[in-house]
Amino acid sequence: MQDLPQGKFITLEGGEGVGKSTNLRFITQWLDEQGISYIQTREPGGTPLAEQLRSLLLEKRDERVDPTAELLMVFAARAQHLNQVIKPALAQGKWVVCDRFTDATYAYQGGGRGLDWALIAQLEQTVQGDLRPDSVLLLDVDPEIGLQRAASTGAADRFESEQMDFFRKVRAAYRKRAEGNPECYQLIDASVPLEEVQQSLAAALQQIAGGS
Amino acid sequence: MQDLPQGKFITLEGGEGVGKSTNLRFITQWLDEQGISYIQTREPGGTPLAEQLRSLLLEKRDERVDPTAELLMVFAARAQHLNQVIKPALAQGKWVVCDRFTDATYAYQGGGRGLDWALIAQLEQTVQGDLRPDSVLLLDVDPEIGLQRAASTGAADRFESEQMDFFRKVRAAYRKRAEGNPECYQLIDASVPLEEVQQSLAAALQQIAGGS
Ligand SMILES: Nc1ncnc2c1ncn2[C@@H]1O[C@H](COP(=O)(O)OP(=O)(O)OP(=O)(O)O)[C@@H](O)[C@H]1O
Ligand SMILES: Nc1ncnc2c1ncn2[C@@H]1O[C@H](COP(=O)(O)OP(=O)(O)OP(=O)(O)O)[C@@H](O)[C@H]1O
Ligand SMILES: [Mg+2]
Ligand SMILES: [Mg+2]
Repeated sequence: MQDLPQGKFITLEGGEGVGKSTNLRFITQWLDEQGISYIQTREPGGTPLAEQLRSLLLEKRDERVDPTAELLMVFAARAQHLNQVIKPALAQGKWVVCDRFTDATYAYQGGGRGLDWALIAQLEQTVQGDLRPDSVLLLDVDPEIGLQRAASTGAADRFESEQMDFFRKVRAAYRKRAEGNPECYQLIDASVPLEEVQQSLAAALQQIAGGS
Repeated sequence: MQDLPQGKFITLEGGEGVGKSTNLRFITQWLDEQGISYIQTREPGGTPLAEQLRSLLLEKRDERVDPTAELLMVFAARAQHLNQVIKPALAQGKWVVCDRFTDATYAYQGGGRGLDWALIAQLEQTVQGDLRPDSVLLLDVDPEIGLQRAASTGAADRFESEQMDFFRKVRAAYRKRAEGNPECYQLIDASVPLEEVQQSLAAALQQIAGGS
């Protein structure tokens, strides 16, 4: 067995339409150029079972969804994804680039739905132990702008159908997460043109790769 | 608003093929005869979302299912079922008769999968607060007999496909639950003919109805 260093675990976060998926492609291109081996994945999802849970979470339904049920579904999908995909990749020395992770839970189920962060932290510990992302790239923009961008990408799902007040709380929660732990977060202004966002991302990636 | 007494919350527990579904019909017939209003339901399940989670849980799959993911799916379904169906029914003074509930989680995910009962207890408190069944009717029989009975009722699901060792641990965990809290449990020998099981059930129901 080789004694590989653990890969870096990078997550891309932010509200609806901030540009996570678009910039994920930029990040993987950058990693290809550096010759860094990685996997690209997303939450909720990333395994067949976790993707089925994602569908149940996003589906619009007549039934009211209990916020605690929603929270537990998110962490069920995460436990599956983490143990089947993320941890094995990191152990092989690969980087893991993930479109949303636990910060989204603090933002959506905490900020948006109003669930207690202490409960989320308890589940985070249960599911993740001490595993946390090495770096969270948080794309930040006024939700009015994000939703306008997202509107072009198909029918609204159960989250995208929420009111503006919900999205404001999500953004505020994301920013609070970043403020609480500035070493691990890169708060990136996503209101500017894409090329400028990507200059910020490239600088952040240099720093992450350098500090290994 | 009338000031109705809370209905009784009765759960039917036990391993594969012990006779839960068969005896649930006996119980609802008894309740009909007494003129007690009730709902009949099951876990995992009992709402459209919770039934979808049940399907994901029971489906046989190539992917290994992480035990913690399984546990969180069970409690997600329970949070939905409890808040949308069980609590409203009890508040209306109805009895709730449920085919499996949290004891099954202690037995299957705790005993069977080996997860810590303390973790299950933590989730139980998160999801249920102080709500517990008024009475747990635990049907107990050697799993060899139960599985023989169950074999007649269709293709084996993901749980029914486990090894005998798993079912022995499930049974032991159920019995341990009953021993730990004898006031709330009726441990019923389910190896005897159905009429005898139902005599025991009728006696238990009399006692539950009397002690309101
Ligand atoms: N900085 C930017 N300026 C203008 N448009 C942008 C910018 N970043 C992304 N977009 C555009 O906004 C739209 C939404 O982007 P994208 O799908 O990447 O967002 P997302 O964060 O993944 O959204 P979702 O939350 O729905 O997954 C796309 O059409 C994309 O081209
Ligand atoms: N005491 C008994 N003696 C003999 N057969 C029984 C007895 N109780 C139930 N059975 C039979 O065993 C079979 C399984 O019963 P049932 O479906 O009610 O079990 P169950 O506990 O609901 O099973 P599952 O865990 O698969 O839901 C049925 O065919 C039923 O008629
Ligand atoms: Mg996206
Ligand atoms: Mg049954």
